[in-house]
Amino acid sequence: MKRKHYETAMAPLREQLVVMARWARTTGQRIVVLFEGRDTAGKGGAIRAVSEKLNPRQCHIVALAKPTEAEQSQWYFQRYVDHLPSAGEIVLFDRSWYNRAGVEKVMGYADDAQVTRFLEQAPAFEKMLVDDGILLFKYWLGTDQAQQEERLRERLEDPLKRWKLSPIDLAARERYDAYTDAREAMLEATHTAHAPWTLVDFNDQKRGRLTLVRDLLDRLPDTHVVPPEIDFPALDREPRAETYAVLKPIADYPIE
Amino acid sequence: MKRKHYETAMAPLREQLVVMARWARTTGQRIVVLFEGRDTAGKGGAIRAVSEKLNPRQCHIVALAKPTEAEQSQWYFQRYVDHLPSAGEIVLFDRSWYNRAGVEKVMGYADDAQVTRFLEQAPAFEKMLVDDGILLFKYWLGTDQAQQEERLRERLEDPLKRWKLSPIDLAARERYDAYTDAREAMLEATHTAHAPWTLVDFNDQKRGRLTLVRDLLDRLPDTHVVPPEIDFPALDREPRAETYAVLKPIADYPIE
Amino acid sequence: MKRKHYETAMAPLREQLVVMARWARTTGQRIVVLFEGRDTAGKGGAIRAVSEKLNPRQCHIVALAKPTEAEQSQWYFQRYVDHLPSAGEIVLFDRSWYNRAGVEKVMGYADDAQVTRFLEQAPAFEKMLVDDGILLFKYWLGTDQAQQEERLRERLEDPLKRWKLSPIDLAARERYDAYTDAREAMLEATHTAHAPWTLVDFNDQKRGRLTLVRDLLDRLPDTHVVPPEIDFPALDREPRAETYAVLKPIADYPIE
Amino acid sequence: MKRKHYETAMAPLREQLVVMARWARTTGQRIVVLFEGRDTAGKGGAIRAVSEKLNPRQCHIVALAKPTEAEQSQWYFQRYVDHLPSAGEIVLFDRSWYNRAGVEKVMGYADDAQVTRFLEQAPAFEKMLVDDGILLFKYWLGTDQAQQEERLRERLEDPLKRWKLSPIDLAARERYDAYTDAREAMLEATHTAHAPWTLVDFNDQKRGRLTLVRDLLDRLPDTHVVPPEIDFPALDREPRAETYAVLKPIADYPIE
Repeated sequence: MKRKHYETAMAPLREQLVVMARWARTTGQRIVVLFEGRDTAGKGGAIRAVSEKLNPRQCHIVALAKPTEAEQSQWYFQRYVDHLPSAGEIVLFDRSWYNRAGVEKVMGYADDAQVTRFLEQAPAFEKMLVDDGILLFKYWLGTDQAQQEERLRERLEDPLKRWKLSPIDLAARERYDAYTDAREAMLEATHTAHAPWTLVDFNDQKRGRLTLVRDLLDRLPDTHVVPPEIDFPALDREPRAETYAVLKPIADYPIE
Repeated sequence: MKRKHYETAMAPLREQLVVMARWARTTGQRIVVLFEGRDTAGKGGAIRAVSEKLNPRQCHIVALAKPTEAEQSQWYFQRYVDHLPSAGEIVLFDRSWYNRAGVEKVMGYADDAQVTRFLEQAPAFEKMLVDDGILLFKYWLGTDQAQQEERLRERLEDPLKRWKLSPIDLAARERYDAYTDAREAMLEATHTAHAPWTLVDFNDQKRGRLTLVRDLLDRLPDTHVVPPEIDFPALDREPRAETYAVLKPIADYPIE
Repeated sequence: MKRKHYETAMAPLREQLVVMARWARTTGQRIVVLFEGRDTAGKGGAIRAVSEKLNPRQCHIVALAKPTEAEQSQWYFQRYVDHLPSAGEIVLFDRSWYNRAGVEKVMGYADDAQVTRFLEQAPAFEKMLVDDGILLFKYWLGTDQAQQEERLRERLEDPLKRWKLSPIDLAARERYDAYTDAREAMLEATHTAHAPWTLVDFNDQKRGRLTLVRDLLDRLPDTHVVPPEIDFPALDREPRAETYAVLKPIADYPIE
Repeated sequence: MKRKHYETAMAPLREQLVVMARWARTTGQRIVVLFEGRDTAGKGGAIRAVSEKLNPRQCHIVALAKPTEAEQSQWYFQRYVDHLPSAGEIVLFDRSWYNRAGVEKVMGYADDAQVTRFLEQAPAFEKMLVDDGILLFKYWLGTDQAQQEERLRERLEDPLKRWKLSPIDLAARERYDAYTDAREAMLEATHTAHAPWTLVDFNDQKRGRLTLVRDLLDRLPDTHVVPPEIDFPALDREPRAETYAVLKPIADYPIE
């Protein structure tokens, strides 16, 4: 999909995301969106598409680091619970509790009993959140292995993206089928009426982002809230220019 | 500044920011950057310029909400300390402890004694962080009132930006001079040898971002670290396409 | 029950609690004990009986203050989850998530829908903890109203206990029956096979403490762990007395 | 000192501690007390003497575990700052940031540069807390080596105390003089006008507790606050006895 096309299609969605955020703030709604999927699928870009025009004091992105040893010994969901939203907040999880059913299972970081227990607990855990009134959305971003290979190669060659190429990614490319199996087991166990999964094709990332954002907006109820009137009288004097006494600004970036 | 110009100038800086992040990760450096300045100056955009290509698991943006009543009764710096970096982390503060010397002073949320105490404590507090080895950078983004007026009007009219128009912003436009005075008092007290301020002109936001990022990079020592060799053998089979059994992806966003 | 009797009976139990703690530390067990019951029943004293000889770095007492406004808008269990144990830890909850089914219900701080939802969620929540391997014990301490009246009067008159006499206590004495009803509804809904309640009569507080501690110990598996050998050679010199140069100790408390 | 004597002397001090707590609650004072000293000196017992009659929702005991790897890489004071009091709270630190100048120095867990930096930063850090209005008290509990030896031997032999006998304790007994030197260096650097140390002789632990509590109370301003009148009308019916339907209490602890 061409950038121009994308921008044209995304523009009204951005406005609707802002409307959604105002609605959440005004009505105290709590929104949680999980972004899961293949390595390289484009989770980061999708999260940016949702969050870029929103207030960072309202919309939090949660990208947890590897658990500490103490955290590993706790109830599995504990460190995620800490980031669930208060009234009016939107939380986007860049990977989530589903790590256990994906990378941890495939790479052997969790044993079979742990994975099985997770697949049993996740629906019950999510039911509690949903029954409590949290709006929970779960997206899984798919991509063919050919695309994945191309993107991995791009990461290898693009200095801006090289940090994204983790040893786990490299292992993951050899376990494409194991990840597929893990996803199917995950869907089987956790695609529930109260917290369904939505799968989105991210072979074309721009189109994938449009599809995801459109779907998210469609699943929400009517989010229109009349914004408050703002009184914006004319200034009663000439606008002032900056004046600096203690310290001056540094030289501007040079333009030839 | 034209977008094309901006993009051309920003491209190599983005690469250097990625190099910086790799260096921080590899050497365990901790980096803290404070973004302060006029309302509408462009703090959010500057933070995005620094963070957009970095790993969100390494580079954290801290945008604290209004303190709770309990937090208000604590040692003023307490809720900020909680977000200081561990080894290898980069923390960008979207407004910071300097709230007390800016908005809280001008709007009367803090009394004179609190502001005076803050201006005494901030240099001592920062000295401890710097002596501990934290790399601390403090940016103040300036903009003339005419620009500020234009941007406020834009926020009023652009549905994407209207949420940014807070009652405090509207009060702030009438107190442009009080903010100037508060900034001068802040610089007088807290522009120190160990933690100097850097003022950047953000009348042109794109140019301001370039100036700020260029300056940040220039202040760091040599951040070059040889990235590890990555072995990327050819796949030993045809790449697999996604196959879905339990659940299919939803329909793609339509393109006419 | 006489103090001397009590001390004689408690002595071996204290030793077994220490054995339990060593076992938890050595094997990585996580133990959670909830203390609920009538106002004045003696929760604080029971918690002290369990914890007094244990390492405060291992055995944590959780007595949460009133939730903040933000916490009130979160998933109800969120602020409790934060205190669940890591490997080897023992957590004693001085009141717990059951507040919602007790004081919040009786005093009208939670509405019927919230109480009903809580009574549905508590068993599911606890099942997740228990299935995760946490050892969960739930004690409810009962006392007749005549006893309660006597203890309230004692609080009124004893300056050491007056702080315990909260307005809620005073309201509670008039709602003895409502608390009884609330307890019965709570037991009906949350006395489960995986997380049963244990009721203990605390009309005699010393005897109640013995009953509770004895029961707790009986429910645990064999906790015997051979303590490590400790090599304790004689000092190779005369023991040194304290010598102070910079600052001297203050005068001892006078004894006539 | 005899137990009876001790109890007689402690009784009025306990009342005054309760008065102190009411004063802190009513006036919003924040109190921090650090308990440092020789191993076996009796920090735990002293903390219990201060806290035993206070509301655990107001008076918090902070006994931090070993720092995680991430915490070790943070600003040294960060994990302590997290536990500083809000208005009306009393925080008792069972060991504190002074670990760095004591056990970490003597056992080599911190290098010379870290210890030197700590000794420079501690007074500045404490000055910020004190200037912010926190009431800070620093106690160091001393004991002769002969006493220490006796208590270590007691820990060895008493099953209730054996857990207290850590490998570090055993190493500490051989480094009695090194601990003395470390204490002197600590006092030299951190016994300041704004945050003085108080040394207390704990060769007799009961007397030491009396000395410490008496000193703490003496250093506070007049803490008398008239407690609110409490209306305690007679119950308007016969007090009810507990009645249990769903579940009965377990059998009482047997008394022969």
